[in-house]
Amino acid sequence: MIVGVLGAGQLARMIALAGIPLGLDFIFLDPSADACANKLGEPLIGDYNDPALLAQLAERADVVTYEFENVPAEVAEFLASHTQVHPSPKALAVAQDRLVEKSFFFGLGIPTPDYAAVDSFESLEQAMITLGYPAILKSCTQGYDGKGQSLLKSPDDLKPAWELLQGVPAVVEAFVPFNREVSIIAVRSVSGEVVFYPLSENLHRGGILRVSECRTNDPMQQQAESYISRLLEALDYVGVLALELFEVDGQLVANEFAPRVHNSGHWTIEGAETSQFENHLRAILDLPLGSTAPVGNAAMVNFIGGLPKTEELLAIPHAHLHLYDKSPRKGRKVAHATIRAESQEQLSELVKKLTVLADQVDDS
Amino acid sequence: MIVGVLGAGQLARMIALAGIPLGLDFIFLDPSADACANKLGEPLIGDYNDPALLAQLAERADVVTYEFENVPAEVAEFLASHTQVHPSPKALAVAQDRLVEKSFFFGLGIPTPDYAAVDSFESLEQAMITLGYPAILKSCTQGYDGKGQSLLKSPDDLKPAWELLQGVPAVVEAFVPFNREVSIIAVRSVSGEVVFYPLSENLHRGGILRVSECRTNDPMQQQAESYISRLLEALDYVGVLALELFEVDGQLVANEFAPRVHNSGHWTIEGAETSQFENHLRAILDLPLGSTAPVGNAAMVNFIGGLPKTEELLAIPHAHLHLYDKSPRKGRKVAHATIRAESQEQLSELVKKLTVLADQVDDS
Repeated sequence: MIVGVLGAGQLARMIALAGIPLGLDFIFLDPSADACANKLGEPLIGDYNDPALLAQLAERADVVTYEFENVPAEVAEFLASHTQVHPSPKALAVAQDRLVEKSFFFGLGIPTPDYAAVDSFESLEQAMITLGYPAILKSCTQGYDGKGQSLLKSPDDLKPAWELLQGVPAVVEAFVPFNREVSIIAVRSVSGEVVFYPLSENLHRGGILRVSECRTNDPMQQQAESYISRLLEALDYVGVLALELFEVDGQLVANEFAPRVHNSGHWTIEGAETSQFENHLRAILDLPLGSTAPVGNAAMVNFIGGLPKTEELLAIPHAHLHLYDKSPRKGRKVAHATIRAESQEQLSELVKKLTVLADQVDDS
Repeated sequence: MIVGVLGAGQLARMIALAGIPLGLDFIFLDPSADACANKLGEPLIGDYNDPALLAQLAERADVVTYEFENVPAEVAEFLASHTQVHPSPKALAVAQDRLVEKSFFFGLGIPTPDYAAVDSFESLEQAMITLGYPAILKSCTQGYDGKGQSLLKSPDDLKPAWELLQGVPAVVEAFVPFNREVSIIAVRSVSGEVVFYPLSENLHRGGILRVSECRTNDPMQQQAESYISRLLEALDYVGVLALELFEVDGQLVANEFAPRVHNSGHWTIEGAETSQFENHLRAILDLPLGSTAPVGNAAMVNFIGGLPKTEELLAIPHAHLHLYDKSPRKGRKVAHATIRAESQEQLSELVKKLTVLADQVDDS
């Protein structure tokens, strides 16, 4: 069985590492010859919309999936008309545009921060009257890891933020005074089987995820499952879906969803009975889904921009290291480590140790 | 960092799957172009004693290891004189000859079944007077998975068993009326750090391992650790070492050791904090060793000769599937599954289910 993946970064790499023991083969389409998943399958090197490469991918792969949501709509449609593609082009289309995404949440009764569409400087000024400061201006498309976003603290910030957008459609959101950030990861198979992972509690800095911790028996679990279930059903979704949420006074508010395996679920490799990567493959191949039960107390720490010495990391008990084989670069995710501890106290202590090491090399 | 491996079978494959997340690259030397680890690194295809390929391996690999003990002595010596090789040629030499191995056990005070060297039909007849029936005749070299072995139940069995050997040196062993078969896996790093895994309790049939189960807090753990410690020290051993033992009336008797990762340790992938494969790599690269603490209650079931349907296997809760990407053939190990259960009762029940499936396709 051959799985085609658009993109050959670390998410594709971890999908392949989960799929090889299941007897799967992989083809990756990525513009970069040294993309870090390439060694784990057959690389097709070229643009995501290269017609010849897409035709080859569609011809040879039994199923195609992707590691990022900014797949051009025509590419997803072409692939879907020639082979199995999961998640569907429809899920991609909703995830690619913040305004469409927010309207979609609204239609499903999933609360979001107050927001307004912005297509001119005047509409931005107008929106701010209702929303109030602080607020965040985001381009509708192409943003990730905090890119294409500006924090608006006072009217003085409006002009520079608007100019940064260079006229692309945007959305301005009220800043949510959240108690914490969480995400839920769900999996739905071709046959409609659905499983949920325990909530991840997430810590971002500079718009980039730094630490995720598995929260077993979290009081917000049920509400999160209810919200993501509506997404799964409305999108007739197949694969892993991640929903990022804010908790505000005991209520969850949706931030955004990602139609793919997600950084906040990397702890599942060691910290859950079945990882998000294996369950994504099981889902798109219509195999029975694996248990999402937590294994021990788990958390994940990202390494951004640089990497501590391997011997230093491996000297930390219970640290499980995942290097992405990417050369360090400012703000670039190059590795993560999972801690799977015996108690919550031990977990906190070890996460602290790892975070200190991560911060020493982090230049972002 | 590049790790060279002699052999590209399932053991090499699982070593690579453990090493890739540590940022390691692999080169495999194997005669078969479709050996199942080849996809996970750079394959050198040719005989194990091909001088040009060996030179290439020695030149490019930072460290060389192997997945089988029958590496020709001159190959091990050549590699060791050009690069780091772990475990050492000395450990290989002892493991390759049953008679040398038994004398070595004897010298270290590790009990073995009674045995005698056999180099003629007369010496076999003579030995049987002392040892008594039943006994097992084994060629000194090249045997694995029960190959080159004959059970001697009565004097009538002597002639055909001797003829089967075709004159190669052999050893005849008294049959040990064991209560059970166990193995211990230990790891020693370049720096001399040592860790032990919990005992595996093993079930063989037809000379081939079928089921291994992790035995936490086994009363025999301490004795097994004492025996394998003597081996590690005497051999100045680096890497994973496996020692197979019989338990007879509360005492352990050594069967044989394997200077490599071992089938009875495959449950460590999901069932221990750090797998034998990762710890083997940490040991030979002189990195800190990982915890060998058990995770849940774990056991492994081998699939020999054939494979049940993937969907049937994955429908079993807590089953973790490891396909070796090898075409089925009589008596060939093609996959294993680990069960990591919440209780001993659940483990037994799920192992039973898996065993039924394994037996349905097993033609050995």
